[in-house]
Amino acid sequence: MDERSMLVSEVRVTPILMEDAPLLNRHGVHQPYATRCIIEIRTEGGEVGLGESYGDQEYLDALRLLAEHLPGHSVTAPNRLWGLAAEVLRPDAVDPRLVDEQSAGWLFGRANLSRLHGIAVSAFEVALLDALGRTVGLPVHALLGGKVRDRVDYAAYLFYRWDEHPTPGAPRDDWPEALDPAGVVGQAERMVDEYGFRSLKLKGGVFPPEEEVAAVEALREAFPERPVRLDPNGIWSVETSARVADELRGVVEYLEDPCLGVSDMAQVHRRTGVPLATNMCVTTPEDVPGAFAAEAVQILLCDHHFWGGLVATQQLAAICRTHGVGLSMHSNTHLGISLAAMTQAAACVRGRLHACDTHRPWQGEDVVTRPHRFVEGAVAVSDEPGLGVELDREALDRLHRRWLDSDVRGRDDVAAMRAADPEWTMPPAPRW
Amino acid sequence: MDERSMLVSEVRVTPILMEDAPLLNRHGVHQPYATRCIIEIRTEGGEVGLGESYGDQEYLDALRLLAEHLPGHSVTAPNRLWGLAAEVLRPDAVDPRLVDEQSAGWLFGRANLSRLHGIAVSAFEVALLDALGRTVGLPVHALLGGKVRDRVDYAAYLFYRWDEHPTPGAPRDDWPEALDPAGVVGQAERMVDEYGFRSLKLKGGVFPPEEEVAAVEALREAFPERPVRLDPNGIWSVETSARVADELRGVVEYLEDPCLGVSDMAQVHRRTGVPLATNMCVTTPEDVPGAFAAEAVQILLCDHHFWGGLVATQQLAAICRTHGVGLSMHSNTHLGISLAAMTQAAACVRGRLHACDTHRPWQGEDVVTRPHRFVEGAVAVSDEPGLGVELDREALDRLHRRWLDSDVRGRDDVAAMRAADPEWTMPPAPRW
Ligand SMILES: [Mg+2]
Ligand SMILES: [Mg+2]
Repeated sequence: MDERSMLVSEVRVTPILMEDAPLLNRHGVHQPYATRCIIEIRTEGGEVGLGESYGDQEYLDALRLLAEHLPGHSVTAPNRLWGLAAEVLRPDAVDPRLVDEQSAGWLFGRANLSRLHGIAVSAFEVALLDALGRTVGLPVHALLGGKVRDRVDYAAYLFYRWDEHPTPGAPRDDWPEALDPAGVVGQAERMVDEYGFRSLKLKGGVFPPEEEVAAVEALREAFPERPVRLDPNGIWSVETSARVADELRGVVEYLEDPCLGVSDMAQVHRRTGVPLATNMCVTTPEDVPGAFAAEAVQILLCDHHFWGGLVATQQLAAICRTHGVGLSMHSNTHLGISLAAMTQAAACVRGRLHACDTHRPWQGEDVVTRPHRFVEGAVAVSDEPGLGVELDREALDRLHRRWLDSDVRGRDDVAAMRAADPEWTMPPAPRW
Repeated sequence: MDERSMLVSEVRVTPILMEDAPLLNRHGVHQPYATRCIIEIRTEGGEVGLGESYGDQEYLDALRLLAEHLPGHSVTAPNRLWGLAAEVLRPDAVDPRLVDEQSAGWLFGRANLSRLHGIAVSAFEVALLDALGRTVGLPVHALLGGKVRDRVDYAAYLFYRWDEHPTPGAPRDDWPEALDPAGVVGQAERMVDEYGFRSLKLKGGVFPPEEEVAAVEALREAFPERPVRLDPNGIWSVETSARVADELRGVVEYLEDPCLGVSDMAQVHRRTGVPLATNMCVTTPEDVPGAFAAEAVQILLCDHHFWGGLVATQQLAAICRTHGVGLSMHSNTHLGISLAAMTQAAACVRGRLHACDTHRPWQGEDVVTRPHRFVEGAVAVSDEPGLGVELDREALDRLHRRWLDSDVRGRDDVAAMRAADPEWTMPPAPRW
């Protein structure tokens, strides 16, 4: 190889704001705009690799700090990002909210150094792999051991939602409100019709558990062939979780994070035998041994954005396979670069992979020229070089200008909820 | 990429015999010639990828069976070998010794379907990665997430040995006998002098434990800066293992397989606190959860030949890292293709890697044009395309003709020992 052409010459980290829908969850409601950042890594050889990560100000600052150190590094060596992240992103160099569990501002999951390094490595690892693939003409999956499937299944991500944001002037989509079983089933019908999803997931934690159980049962009745999941983001007590698990045994494919923490999750599984999934109680390698030993988790939702990237995702999948733990993929608000990365990574995972989460139906905007198409609920695995997506620079510029013109610098679903309910505060956990 | 050029057009599996030294171990002594097989995978694009694996007849048959199914597969998708191996290498299609623990003829470790599939996948995975790397001009390490080190440390592999084989007409090297502490230290001195090794490993299980303890103590005294390991291949009882561990606490870096099985290993570690390594009680993914939970293993010796290849080795390393288990690499008799593969894989492992095993000093023959050089005990990580080695076809032909002209079709250290001691039988375990 021409080693010089493989070196990073320039890195851009561009924060953007994307329109988001009024989706409800345990904390409140999504804001009208969500932050995100887009990574471009240019090589000496003139190729550009793309990445996408969180856009909250504290992450943006950390990513920019790491980005300064990337020029001169080889796109052939993403693994070296770990050492670099450890050197550069020291606890005293970053926003305390990123590394201190107590002051964590992050919506779900944890905040510690290990997680921060996973997030930072991932943002640039994806871009390095994209650049490497483009340089040598290989799809990213060929840099991950190779694909074992040609299509990756995704699940319909159903949300309780309003028809519009309470904030005046907020963007509006054409989805109606869904606040009860009938609304949820209607949403599912349209989503299945338009995207062909063969699995359904309902974001819960919004209404009292019996209402959400009723919604899941209504989904099951309306779609008897489609596995259904429910994810209240840990807002139930062990008692409530166990009761819901008993009620939904055989109805749900699995319950996702009914309660918080390894010990409570393990109790619920021990008492009910219902499979539990998580993207909250196991979010760093340090969490794995204890959680797996306690049998707190039967399905792990991996997420390359915080597990350290696409290579690390393959490794996490191997850890799960070795321990007999099932695998799916978690999703946050994302654009087409992340969906491409998720699809490439999922394509390479050996063994069973439960349909992955995607927020795609809710995010109409994109920064890639050809947004992904879902056919029968699946995305075809691209064999184009790299991730197989091209940056739509005009769109990126527009979304970045929106960020410049706005003071939204993070995600705060609690504050967004106050626009509708001035008395709203962060609900306690457990709430029910 | 030009997908057609990436397809496998032809596979050759060539058995060879290589000269081996009269090295002693718990079973007996190495035979004068060892079997091995060399894999060549040719692509439609005209590139050739190399692999190297076991040459015992039963493995050879299995590898050839799988090889028949490879033409048409893409070199970009080594992960697909797992599905193919599961389809083709069914229990009724292979020699029972490969899949039945009870009738296992394999020298060390286990025999089961999982292990067989790991072995078969590995042999061809390495060759696919080599071919892919050559096709696109990337070193194999760039197909594994990238190297994090530029040199891989190996350990001097010290053996009790005779000066020559008892068999008349057997090949002879220029190393003298080593049957006591002075002999072992002399061997180490020459090996350190010629190769620069910075770690030392003594293959034990040959003499009563007190003699081997004395040899390790002599090594420690002669090389106070160099970590020393002792590997009796599981021939001691728990009592003996614990006694040796107590005697060598602080003297050895670790004890390797003092006794057999997870439960006995765990007992020894619990009683002594001395770190234990294994390439015997954890040899398939199925062994991992129980062994790690029992704390039977503090250092896992991975071996891409039976763990499923170089991608799987990265995943195994991640499993160990996640569980706080250290990592080194196991070696059997090998040639330069395997040494290149080990070096590429080891280069990519994040975190601490204990110096890897190599039989290199004992195997003077090779099938690559430029045998590896050890500088200060380390092999430089090649940045050439693929594995960075070229096949010496003349040497391969010569070693293959030797195989054709011989009836040696496997490894039998017990039989080889009978040439010197007609009464010799397989020693019991535990022997001491
Ligand atoms: Mg979740
Ligand atoms: Mg050993």
